[in-house]
Amino acid sequence: MKLGVVGGGQLGRMLAQAALPLGIETKFLDPSAQSCAAAAGQLICAAYDDAEGIQQLSEGVSAVTFEFENVPPLTVEKLSQSLPAYPPANALATARDRWVEKSMFRDLGIDTPAFEKIDDQETLDAAVERLGCPAVLKTRTLGYDGKGQKVLRSTQDAAGAFAFLGSVPLIMESFVEFEYEVSCIGVRSASGDCVFYPLIHNEHRQGILYRSQPILNSSLQSQAESVVKKVMDSLNYVGTLAFEFFVKDDQLIANEIAPRVHNSGHWTIEGSATSQFENHVRAVAGLPLGSTETRGDVAMYNIIGKLPVIEKILAIPGVHLHNYGKSERAGRKIAHLTVTSESAEQLNSRCSQVEALLVNDLGV
Amino acid sequence: MKLGVVGGGQLGRMLAQAALPLGIETKFLDPSAQSCAAAAGQLICAAYDDAEGIQQLSEGVSAVTFEFENVPPLTVEKLSQSLPAYPPANALATARDRWVEKSMFRDLGIDTPAFEKIDDQETLDAAVERLGCPAVLKTRTLGYDGKGQKVLRSTQDAAGAFAFLGSVPLIMESFVEFEYEVSCIGVRSASGDCVFYPLIHNEHRQGILYRSQPILNSSLQSQAESVVKKVMDSLNYVGTLAFEFFVKDDQLIANEIAPRVHNSGHWTIEGSATSQFENHVRAVAGLPLGSTETRGDVAMYNIIGKLPVIEKILAIPGVHLHNYGKSERAGRKIAHLTVTSESAEQLNSRCSQVEALLVNDLGV
Repeated sequence: MKLGVVGGGQLGRMLAQAALPLGIETKFLDPSAQSCAAAAGQLICAAYDDAEGIQQLSEGVSAVTFEFENVPPLTVEKLSQSLPAYPPANALATARDRWVEKSMFRDLGIDTPAFEKIDDQETLDAAVERLGCPAVLKTRTLGYDGKGQKVLRSTQDAAGAFAFLGSVPLIMESFVEFEYEVSCIGVRSASGDCVFYPLIHNEHRQGILYRSQPILNSSLQSQAESVVKKVMDSLNYVGTLAFEFFVKDDQLIANEIAPRVHNSGHWTIEGSATSQFENHVRAVAGLPLGSTETRGDVAMYNIIGKLPVIEKILAIPGVHLHNYGKSERAGRKIAHLTVTSESAEQLNSRCSQVEALLVNDLGV
Repeated sequence: MKLGVVGGGQLGRMLAQAALPLGIETKFLDPSAQSCAAAAGQLICAAYDDAEGIQQLSEGVSAVTFEFENVPPLTVEKLSQSLPAYPPANALATARDRWVEKSMFRDLGIDTPAFEKIDDQETLDAAVERLGCPAVLKTRTLGYDGKGQKVLRSTQDAAGAFAFLGSVPLIMESFVEFEYEVSCIGVRSASGDCVFYPLIHNEHRQGILYRSQPILNSSLQSQAESVVKKVMDSLNYVGTLAFEFFVKDDQLIANEIAPRVHNSGHWTIEGSATSQFENHVRAVAGLPLGSTETRGDVAMYNIIGKLPVIEKILAIPGVHLHNYGKSERAGRKIAHLTVTSESAEQLNSRCSQVEALLVNDLGV
């Protein structure tokens, strides 16, 4: 069996690594000849909307998926005419547009920060009047890792902000004084079965995910699973979905979804009975979903910009390196580390050793 | 970094899968265009002793290794003239010849069954006289999985046995009434550091490994580690080595070594902090060896000849499929399953479910 993947970054690379032991080979469509997924499968080098590239991707594969949300929904729709193409194009279209996404949350009765649709400086000024500050202004599409955002600390910051963000459609969201951020990763099969990983506590540095760790919180866990299930069912979703929440007063406030495997779930490769990557492949390929039980105590660190001294990192017991084979560049995610252990105490000790060696270069 | 591997079977495929997260890509040399490792790296299709193929394999790689012992030692020696080539050619040459191998055991003072070198029917008859029966007659080279062997139950069985096994150099070994079989997998770095996995209990069916499970036995473990270290040091070994023993009266009797990653260690992918494959790559690439601590309770099953119903297998929690992408054929190893769990009880329950689904076709 073969699987087609639109996008050839590290998520595609790790999808291919999960697919191969299932006997499934992978083919990628990506405009960059340097796509790091090419080391794990066949690369078709063409734009995401290139008709010939899309045709080539679909040849000889049994199903297709995508690895990030900047893929045009039309590509997925086109592929879905001849093949199972999951997650569905409508889920991709929803997740790509922060205003459509937040509107879906509101329609489903899911707690989310107050938000307004911004089409020009005039609607921005009116929204600032209504919602007040602090608030966050974000491009509706194509933003990630804190890019395409501006914090409005006071009403003065709104002046010229529409032009500053490129005069493109925006969303303004009330700033939430949250205590911490979590994500919930769920997987849904074509027959509607769902599995969920434990909630993940995420720490960001300068807008980029730095550290993720699964946590046990039964009240938040059941809140999260119910919200994620509601969204997956309403989108008739198939595959892995990540849902990011703010936590305040033991309540979840919906931030955003990613219709794909997610950076905060990379620890599942070593830390779960079945990884988010394998479960995504299983869902897309029509195989039964696997157990999400956690294996020991585990945490994940992103390596950003610059690799640490690998010999020192690998000498720490329980450290699993995932080097994506990308060149070093300030602010770029080039690898991650998962730390496994038998106890919380052992995990803390190993994490301290790891943190002392990281030289994350955020370039900001 | 790139690694060259002589041989492109499932061991090569799993070496490549372990190397990629370390940022190491893999290139294979194998005469078969159907090599299943090709899905995980670049394949150079040529005979193991083909000068041009060897040259192509060595281009752009930082080190080379091999994935099975039927590779000609001369190929490794040739590669070692320009590159780190591990394990060393002398280890390969020793392991390829059962008589040389057993002689090394004897020279190092390692317990082994009584054995004799057989060059013709005459030396065979004389050996039968000296050692008595039952005994096992094996080709000195190129045998595996019980192939190229003949059991001599009584002296009459010796008649014509030399011709029966192809009139090639043989070894005759006294039959050991062992209680069970274990293997010890060790890894040695170029600087002489050694790590060992826990002893593995191996169950064979018709000469082919069926089930492997790590066991705790501190007395046998220390015996085994001391023997394996002695052999690795004496061969100036670099990489993963598997040592098979018979167990009788709480003593180890050396059976044979494999100078490579080994089928009985496949459970280390999910069951150890660092797999035998990753530690082999680390050793060959000059990286520090990783922890061999075991993660939970774990067992491995070979899938031979015919795949079970994959949907049913994948529905059992904690079951990890490794489908090698090879076509089904009686007696052929085409996949393996690792079962992970949190307790011995849970492992037993999961293994029972697995065993009920296996349809191993030994074709005999």
